[in-house]
Amino acid sequence: MTTYPNQRIVLTSRPVGAFKPTDLSLETDELAAPGPGHAMIAVDTLSIDAFIRTILDDGSYHMSVPLGGLVTALGVGTVVDSTVEELQPGDRVFGPLGAQTHALLPATALRKLDVGVVPARAYLGAIGLTTGVTAYFGMCVVGAVTQGDVVVVSGAAGAVGSVAGQLARIAGAGKVIGVAGGPHKTAFLVDELGYDAAIDYKNDDVPTRLRELAPDGVDVFYDNVGGAILDAVLFQIRERGRIVICGGISQYEHMDRVVGPTNYLKLAERHARMEGFAVTHFADRFGEAETALAGWLAEGRLKMPEHVVHGIDQFPAALDTLLTGGHTGKMLLQVS
Amino acid sequence: MTTYPNQRIVLTSRPVGAFKPTDLSLETDELAAPGPGHAMIAVDTLSIDAFIRTILDDGSYHMSVPLGGLVTALGVGTVVDSTVEELQPGDRVFGPLGAQTHALLPATALRKLDVGVVPARAYLGAIGLTTGVTAYFGMCVVGAVTQGDVVVVSGAAGAVGSVAGQLARIAGAGKVIGVAGGPHKTAFLVDELGYDAAIDYKNDDVPTRLRELAPDGVDVFYDNVGGAILDAVLFQIRERGRIVICGGISQYEHMDRVVGPTNYLKLAERHARMEGFAVTHFADRFGEAETALAGWLAEGRLKMPEHVVHGIDQFPAALDTLLTGGHTGKMLLQVS
Repeated sequence: MTTYPNQRIVLTSRPVGAFKPTDLSLETDELAAPGPGHAMIAVDTLSIDAFIRTILDDGSYHMSVPLGGLVTALGVGTVVDSTVEELQPGDRVFGPLGAQTHALLPATALRKLDVGVVPARAYLGAIGLTTGVTAYFGMCVVGAVTQGDVVVVSGAAGAVGSVAGQLARIAGAGKVIGVAGGPHKTAFLVDELGYDAAIDYKNDDVPTRLRELAPDGVDVFYDNVGGAILDAVLFQIRERGRIVICGGISQYEHMDRVVGPTNYLKLAERHARMEGFAVTHFADRFGEAETALAGWLAEGRLKMPEHVVHGIDQFPAALDTLLTGGHTGKMLLQVS
Repeated sequence: MTTYPNQRIVLTSRPVGAFKPTDLSLETDELAAPGPGHAMIAVDTLSIDAFIRTILDDGSYHMSVPLGGLVTALGVGTVVDSTVEELQPGDRVFGPLGAQTHALLPATALRKLDVGVVPARAYLGAIGLTTGVTAYFGMCVVGAVTQGDVVVVSGAAGAVGSVAGQLARIAGAGKVIGVAGGPHKTAFLVDELGYDAAIDYKNDDVPTRLRELAPDGVDVFYDNVGGAILDAVLFQIRERGRIVICGGISQYEHMDRVVGPTNYLKLAERHARMEGFAVTHFADRFGEAETALAGWLAEGRLKMPEHVVHGIDQFPAALDTLLTGGHTGKMLLQVS
């Protein structure tokens, strides 16, 4: 019986504080040929996402990775073997492929991709669930951005932030301000992504710069970071402002002692709201988001810069780069 | 020319940490007879509100009381002298009378009360801006309580909390749970106000009791307190739950180092929102709230228990009682 050699990244030790690449390691095994209802996928590209950090902890709110277990990751791949009529060798698919070179999965966990309009990897980026689709629901639905709004995005040079700021612009925001770390990223925001202004949280005084850039306050804040940046925007939130809690990457390495927003009482003063979401809460509307995003992408109104790393053995380093902010745009791992 | 002897409570020293009654003191002065457009009011009853604590600090978000200045308070009184045709001696009025026995105010700052349906002091309680009307907008509009909801109210034995829980019941909530300090208050909630259950935060383990009482989660949390109680409810918030930030009395004595809600990332996990408000944000809808509340009061569906203290010299002690939670229901100071 045919088997498939596989290289996979497993969790060796749960990170204590900061993630270290050595918390993960590379293993090899053999995967059996697919049984009924299953398909064997050669993994092409993996999406490197911040949520992966949270599931390396025990009892985190996403499904935790067991010690010794395969690290979860979303990806796109190519069918190489299948017992299911709808999936034929050569078909491109999206799914929870995991941090490995091959994935044996039930067909029900896979989505066959139409690569006629956009390339397969766009399903991890501009129209990806954890990137473009997340930004779409966060900015357009939860944040309800509208004409003339003053918008701030944190983690703005990251994958979700890159799209979120562009969506604010498409919606007619009056001013779009990004917060990111370092002059390389702030230049990227303004020069590449069309942000009106950017704050370098590593070198600027965020509250001061925010007062300068948004003297009349902030209508929508799309927050991927939490911590001091969230507090600075709360202080400057406008009456009826909306704060979208998409993530809190500044807190992910100490989820047992998260620092909450000390300025949260500004919500009462300004009749403002803070609303969180995960993309899965909008599962019944994914099609709407994908259609809109693919349209803007085709029209050239939306760009998705990529940061690509090569080789499954680079997965731990790629995750570390993501978590320490050493990237701009969408972080991808090219496996094959 | 006629003058009016006045006794007034002024701010002697800004509280450092816990408020002390000695931060305030009693002064006497004489008020001149009202000039054009003004009226002299004999203060009948003052509303003792938690917001007063916040304006004793410098630069707090409400208008701060200057050192040596009259302490702000809302109240009802009786016109004793007036140069304005619409206000005649004997008329009952509501307004920012201040912590004093007489108030000289422009007629535009006063509201002439219709005391045919409800007594004047109801305008400080069941249909008062800082009490019933606040609870109405918080529970019915911001919290959007609806049939079957599991509702939690903190500071539940206080004035706003007393009404908020009853409004949840009127709206058809499935379960109404109050959080208050001490067995006297929890009994008051269940026996007097019709709460389904109560948690004594001084003696119970709040997270444990909350899991027992709301095993499937909380739909609406009306928060007057903040701190550990807010964190406990965030942990137990239901998908699409609403947290209403009305106040944060646990934080008022250290506004320079507020403890933010460490569990705020639950908002993202549960697609929940935290929205704050002040009653003034609904100024264009006060009439709607008053009419609804007066109706429920007349029908006996709404009660407003009162805790009444007598004498202007007791103002500092009454505020201290309020801030340390030594009251149930609406705290009032009977001046005359």
